[in-house]
Amino acid sequence: MSVNENTVSKPNSLKKIAIFGVGLIGGSFALALKQHGVVAEVMGVGRRRETLERAKSLGIIDGIAETTQEAVTGADLILIAAPVAQTGALLAAIAPYLSSETVVTDAGSTKSDVVLAARHALGSKITQFVPAHPIAGREQNGPEAALSSLYVGKKVILTPLQENTPQAITRVANAWQQCGALIHQLDAAEHDAVFAAVSHLPHLLAYALVDDIAARPNADTLFHYAASGFRDFTRIAGSSPEMWRDIALANRAALLNELDSYINQVAHMRELLAQEDSLGLEAIFTRARDARQSWITAIEATEQPRPHEQGGD
Amino acid sequence: MSVNENTVSKPNSLKKIAIFGVGLIGGSFALALKQHGVVAEVMGVGRRRETLERAKSLGIIDGIAETTQEAVTGADLILIAAPVAQTGALLAAIAPYLSSETVVTDAGSTKSDVVLAARHALGSKITQFVPAHPIAGREQNGPEAALSSLYVGKKVILTPLQENTPQAITRVANAWQQCGALIHQLDAAEHDAVFAAVSHLPHLLAYALVDDIAARPNADTLFHYAASGFRDFTRIAGSSPEMWRDIALANRAALLNELDSYINQVAHMRELLAQEDSLGLEAIFTRARDARQSWITAIEATEQPRPHEQGGD
Repeated sequence: MSVNENTVSKPNSLKKIAIFGVGLIGGSFALALKQHGVVAEVMGVGRRRETLERAKSLGIIDGIAETTQEAVTGADLILIAAPVAQTGALLAAIAPYLSSETVVTDAGSTKSDVVLAARHALGSKITQFVPAHPIAGREQNGPEAALSSLYVGKKVILTPLQENTPQAITRVANAWQQCGALIHQLDAAEHDAVFAAVSHLPHLLAYALVDDIAARPNADTLFHYAASGFRDFTRIAGSSPEMWRDIALANRAALLNELDSYINQVAHMRELLAQEDSLGLEAIFTRARDARQSWITAIEATEQPRPHEQGGD
Repeated sequence: MSVNENTVSKPNSLKKIAIFGVGLIGGSFALALKQHGVVAEVMGVGRRRETLERAKSLGIIDGIAETTQEAVTGADLILIAAPVAQTGALLAAIAPYLSSETVVTDAGSTKSDVVLAARHALGSKITQFVPAHPIAGREQNGPEAALSSLYVGKKVILTPLQENTPQAITRVANAWQQCGALIHQLDAAEHDAVFAAVSHLPHLLAYALVDDIAARPNADTLFHYAASGFRDFTRIAGSSPEMWRDIALANRAALLNELDSYINQVAHMRELLAQEDSLGLEAIFTRARDARQSWITAIEATEQPRPHEQGGD
């Protein structure tokens, strides 16, 4: 009995997975499944040969697919972990070789646009595509940043389609659970509305503050006196501009709603301050302090502390 | 030779200091000076007897002043470390007993309002008042939170008045240097403009976001999916509502300018997004990311890592 035969005898095991994009997200997924012995073969696909070679030498993938057909053929599961703007093109390239035995998922930070692109690319094979969003990341990128433990205790949100079979959803959920993740389900539109509020909006607000200050004649003086409060508030402004440009555009409708709501809230606060409305200001600050404290207490009760992370949420 | 006589023989040593407010800020100042043996006697003053007793039992103060007169008489240096809104009343109470030998300073987060209150309270004795702002803090408050190391490597900004004598300024600067702090000087108005931008505005923005989200019908869902990016962005919304209400009102003019500038910046970003201006968005994100990276590189080159801290900046 070979090692591979031994491996594939485990429950929920996979003969072959194909990873499109072998960086932090795809690489960590592969490492976790390999570490738990639930996948016999991981094939990597990507635009840059050099990155694929590095992923192979790091043990993230077993082989480099020379063609999309080679990657897709015989795969139980395909993960698209490339920049989200490429999802449609990758799915279109995959579609011709997609047998009914294969399930496809993704790891994009937005879901409505991915579903739209997937419907266009896959046609009737949309039944085999189960959209997902793992809420995890690190400051580093690339195969070298991949960790088998990246998803342990982290949420992965599935936004299944009406057309998905229970078996397809289960295969994706099982794979993420084997990575140690906690599975949640949302409707794609609800997912996008939620993340517009708690992730995409804060990223834009942090970028806006840093750029506003950096553009001033006395920017050096301002940065000189900025302290730890400013540092934490703007940490997410250190994220990839290209990735966040794509996320903002992909989730434009929900994000415009959030920006309007926030501009109204800040304008209201400005009026309270202009009118020296001490009670009004204190009421907002107190509600916010208390709500945040309740939230922190709740997450500390259910989750282990996270290391500094970024870009994936 | 008594311990006290030995102590006061050190250069720049102080016979007596009086601390109005023996919590984190005032207590840490006293502990640092005592630890370095540069003060013979520390008298504490405060509204709550119990807090003063705790400060005494912790070795922060040597004695509890029963009256303002007792605290002030014979002091080389007086530090006002009470909530900033009390500064005027405390200075007015001190003024009658203030001999020409005593220098007074404060630790408030805003300076123009403090200078105005001090001029009103002290009259011609304003020459003896040297305003200051230590850029340090912790999440905890009260005498138990005080640390002799709180100011090591941290900035203390003096905003001296034209009327101050060089001797008065030097006495305050020396005391903070003996705490391990780095001394900076700004004009009071410049100080307030700088901190409106890099500290007061971010606090209001963090409060605004959390309150906006907490007020929604689906707040529980939104908080449920908020991750580490949201946590860091909103950390300063965990700060004291009373303290930040007072700071916002005290620095109202500068903060209104900052709010207007920021609302314009976010509205501009909203328009870029509405128009799907990919290049425009990416340009802002890239400038912000690069400016923040340069800033982080610069502070990492000059400062030691800070623990999580809050409230004092």
